[in-house]
Amino acid sequence: MLVVMENHATPDQIERVVRVIEEMGYHARPMPGGQRMAVGLVGNDGRVDGSRIEALPGVAEVIHVSKPYKQVSREWKQDSTVVRIAPGVEFGGEQIQIIAGPCSVESESQIVTAARLVRVAGATALRGGAFKPRSSPYSFQGMGKRGLELLALAKRETGLAIVTEALDEESIQLVAEVADCIQIGARNMQNYSLLRAAGRIGKPVLLKRGMAATITDLLMSAEYILAEGNERVILCERGIRSFDTMTRNLFDLTAIPLVQKLSHLPIIADPSHGTGLRDKV
Amino acid sequence: MLVVMENHATPDQIERVVRVIEEMGYHARPMPGGQRMAVGLVGNDGRVDGSRIEALPGVAEVIHVSKPYKQVSREWKQDSTVVRIAPGVEFGGEQIQIIAGPCSVESESQIVTAARLVRVAGATALRGGAFKPRSSPYSFQGMGKRGLELLALAKRETGLAIVTEALDEESIQLVAEVADCIQIGARNMQNYSLLRAAGRIGKPVLLKRGMAATITDLLMSAEYILAEGNERVILCERGIRSFDTMTRNLFDLTAIPLVQKLSHLPIIADPSHGTGLRDKV
Amino acid sequence: MLVVMENHATPDQIERVVRVIEEMGYHARPMPGGQRMAVGLVGNDGRVDGSRIEALPGVAEVIHVSKPYKQVSREWKQDSTVVRIAPGVEFGGEQIQIIAGPCSVESESQIVTAARLVRVAGATALRGGAFKPRSSPYSFQGMGKRGLELLALAKRETGLAIVTEALDEESIQLVAEVADCIQIGARNMQNYSLLRAAGRIGKPVLLKRGMAATITDLLMSAEYILAEGNERVILCERGIRSFDTMTRNLFDLTAIPLVQKLSHLPIIADPSHGTGLRDKV
Amino acid sequence: MLVVMENHATPDQIERVVRVIEEMGYHARPMPGGQRMAVGLVGNDGRVDGSRIEALPGVAEVIHVSKPYKQVSREWKQDSTVVRIAPGVEFGGEQIQIIAGPCSVESESQIVTAARLVRVAGATALRGGAFKPRSSPYSFQGMGKRGLELLALAKRETGLAIVTEALDEESIQLVAEVADCIQIGARNMQNYSLLRAAGRIGKPVLLKRGMAATITDLLMSAEYILAEGNERVILCERGIRSFDTMTRNLFDLTAIPLVQKLSHLPIIADPSHGTGLRDKV
Repeated sequence: MLVVMENHATPDQIERVVRVIEEMGYHARPMPGGQRMAVGLVGNDGRVDGSRIEALPGVAEVIHVSKPYKQVSREWKQDSTVVRIAPGVEFGGEQIQIIAGPCSVESESQIVTAARLVRVAGATALRGGAFKPRSSPYSFQGMGKRGLELLALAKRETGLAIVTEALDEESIQLVAEVADCIQIGARNMQNYSLLRAAGRIGKPVLLKRGMAATITDLLMSAEYILAEGNERVILCERGIRSFDTMTRNLFDLTAIPLVQKLSHLPIIADPSHGTGLRDKV
Repeated sequence: MLVVMENHATPDQIERVVRVIEEMGYHARPMPGGQRMAVGLVGNDGRVDGSRIEALPGVAEVIHVSKPYKQVSREWKQDSTVVRIAPGVEFGGEQIQIIAGPCSVESESQIVTAARLVRVAGATALRGGAFKPRSSPYSFQGMGKRGLELLALAKRETGLAIVTEALDEESIQLVAEVADCIQIGARNMQNYSLLRAAGRIGKPVLLKRGMAATITDLLMSAEYILAEGNERVILCERGIRSFDTMTRNLFDLTAIPLVQKLSHLPIIADPSHGTGLRDKV
Repeated sequence: MLVVMENHATPDQIERVVRVIEEMGYHARPMPGGQRMAVGLVGNDGRVDGSRIEALPGVAEVIHVSKPYKQVSREWKQDSTVVRIAPGVEFGGEQIQIIAGPCSVESESQIVTAARLVRVAGATALRGGAFKPRSSPYSFQGMGKRGLELLALAKRETGLAIVTEALDEESIQLVAEVADCIQIGARNMQNYSLLRAAGRIGKPVLLKRGMAATITDLLMSAEYILAEGNERVILCERGIRSFDTMTRNLFDLTAIPLVQKLSHLPIIADPSHGTGLRDKV
Repeated sequence: MLVVMENHATPDQIERVVRVIEEMGYHARPMPGGQRMAVGLVGNDGRVDGSRIEALPGVAEVIHVSKPYKQVSREWKQDSTVVRIAPGVEFGGEQIQIIAGPCSVESESQIVTAARLVRVAGATALRGGAFKPRSSPYSFQGMGKRGLELLALAKRETGLAIVTEALDEESIQLVAEVADCIQIGARNMQNYSLLRAAGRIGKPVLLKRGMAATITDLLMSAEYILAEGNERVILCERGIRSFDTMTRNLFDLTAIPLVQKLSHLPIIADPSHGTGLRDKV
């Protein structure tokens, strides 16, 4: 952590920052600059809560050097994590996996036909919502339990792995019985109770980036799942909100190499909100 | 709904749009323009799903004229709703109410002292988190049930109304026993299971705007609560995400008169994320 | 244009809207809906100024159906425009063109070496700034006229076409003498005096999308150049501003097919602000 | 400047960073942390170009401690600058000034009537565009020179100070003859040639924040004017672009105290783009 002093901070104010850092059990390392003094905080094993120091007189800014996340970072684990959701269906490895399917499960014939078509087209996993998060309470909210049964049937018919969304702690139990990979949608990316439940269940989780989530936010949400002991998390970029409403979502292509640099977790792209209807590694 | 045709749409394509609208049970009303034809859809009692028409050849765009929300709108109910969370503590009326208090409940002496101070300063309601949504799983997550007990104690000591956050369907039951008003935070604004649970409980709800939520999104989320029969919803503007990270959140002042025009529900401002630590009507 | 009335608009208010539309010389076409009345304005040959109607009592909203741009639109001209900036260097055609080079021209050896390297790597055009728009007045502002001379030299040595930026009406005259294509940068995308000057000069123009420009804004700026009689405009997506500052710019991939649908002008991608240092068709 | 090393940077890599810093003429100050090493760069008198260090192996990030602007900062000049545009019309002082008037000058009677009305309403300055930046080349672009003459007439009639926009180096000369304060609009905020011209002319300048400009961007643009020796700059917050298009611009209230903390220049609010038509200190 680096404490940047105002350029007319007094020696007393600097001295006090040094003292507080030492009271907190760390070492202070003053760094005089041409325009202002900075004080480094040394000896921390992770992120320090800087609010006490930020409030001291003469302090202009507190800069964090450590990242707020831990287990998801590539510094914690150098090798890329490969998440296997079903035999032969691995994310983060060499092979490209395609997850495809309709927005929601609507009937037996619809989902079985869709499953057959996407398998022929090369997909290895079937997606389709049984529980749907809808912005309107009056829209169709999904078939629920019956939708899960139809997904199970489509799996028996085609051998495809199933990826489907869970909305709350109740539905996640039901989803976990059928799905090979539990999806947590963009709107629930910071629903920490749901993230923890997904961590405890221990099945693979597909975590979608929220519409206004920074990459740090996404990694912190994944950290919630790993903190419960479940490392099988697949991240998913699906587009973020921008000022141009002509495109419903702005697909953030750069997020993919960036996440790959910062984290060992696999990340996939879901271009369906922008253009077509495909999921790609 | 208005269906705008491409400017070189053929008569056949226009004819087909008319036919589909009529098959859907509505009336079609062609509107020739200088540059292009548009076809109005008439006779709908609410929002029509335009996806079938959007996919027809020659269609450039589908424009919705009806709003997606209903019970929250001022067209549904002209008079402003006044939400009374405790005797004399009314939102949406003439009086200005101040909700104040610490970020989280930390100890008996802390919350009781804070309650006394904010009462003296003119507040009529005390806020303070017993359940805290934290971006890091390693941060303090709130005192939980014990925090609620301390809020109940602070209420007995000062007479202040209690506003505190619920994070999931489990904690909302506990919160409802103590709180005069249940807060749903920005991160859970689109957690529809939680919104429905808040609707069913029937206590006043303080619904905070999400960091990337449009005003329409906020009103749609409130609609979830009203759809369960609970009209006692207080909306809260607390700042949205912008490209300038120098300010943590961008307080959207214009949202307040805009919501007041579109909805009968009261809206309050929470400037604490931007600058100080006050909540104002 | 479609005039949407409030749902409790009176017959008198609707009548008045109809009258005003007819006074303006158009036809009014009332469209009763389940929730509200809308009035279509028919007979316009382009965009109508709706401000007079917007101010009438009972009017909720005015929706424009015509696009605000004209000559840049694919409806104006169906066939894709091919912009030829030098013999064999065509944008918008079948071949992929690569524009490459350093950020700014710094010395004879630097630019000539760079030109040779990028030609070997397959580029057909050389970029490099002689006039640089810098956020700090204390940063190097480019070599100016001498930089242009060095670009001319690099062109003689390698045969590459030259693309370089003009900042104002003075420098655009100098740039036009050397460049095969005049670049207008993101910060000047709405500098209408410069756009008009570029239109009058008549040389090919590379117009970069501004950091907060919508696609409509970009097309409107191009319209300024076409309105002066110069159709040789190449659009360029280079990334827009987002709330996540971890990536300096958010490359908007979807903009490319969208612009191709809306406009006949060629659009290229400049990924250099995000990741590497390449320009691709 | 602080150089943060990757957590598995080798001693050789750290050593090389130290060596490069010293070759650049500064002092290096290694700061070992629990997770990673950081190296402070000490002895700089302003901002250092970190690109050479950023490219070294083992370097994770370079953090700048100094601000990129200088003369506009409150550290450079502690006392608030008061900009006097006409006798008794001072910005940055105790009194609240109101600038009001129509969007553009349209006729003699219109501007003189408007001037009289706004004077009665308490305004001390009249605004009104003679040169208008329009997103469409087919819209009315302002009356130009004739508009300036009418503004001069309105000034003679009412005694109001005149604030009007200049679009380019040509019009700024004409504007300067009539205006008491030259306005540079949001779209031209990073038109550096125009900023420099405004600096050289030496008249008071009203600089509006661009639609996607950060506060740092705004201050850097003001720095261009001060760097030419003209300190009489009034900053203006007028709303920025957000993802919610229901409000045309998002007025950034927090920007005002933030700018006041960072800079000695006065800042005014222009709420006209959001709601009404007033300008306030």
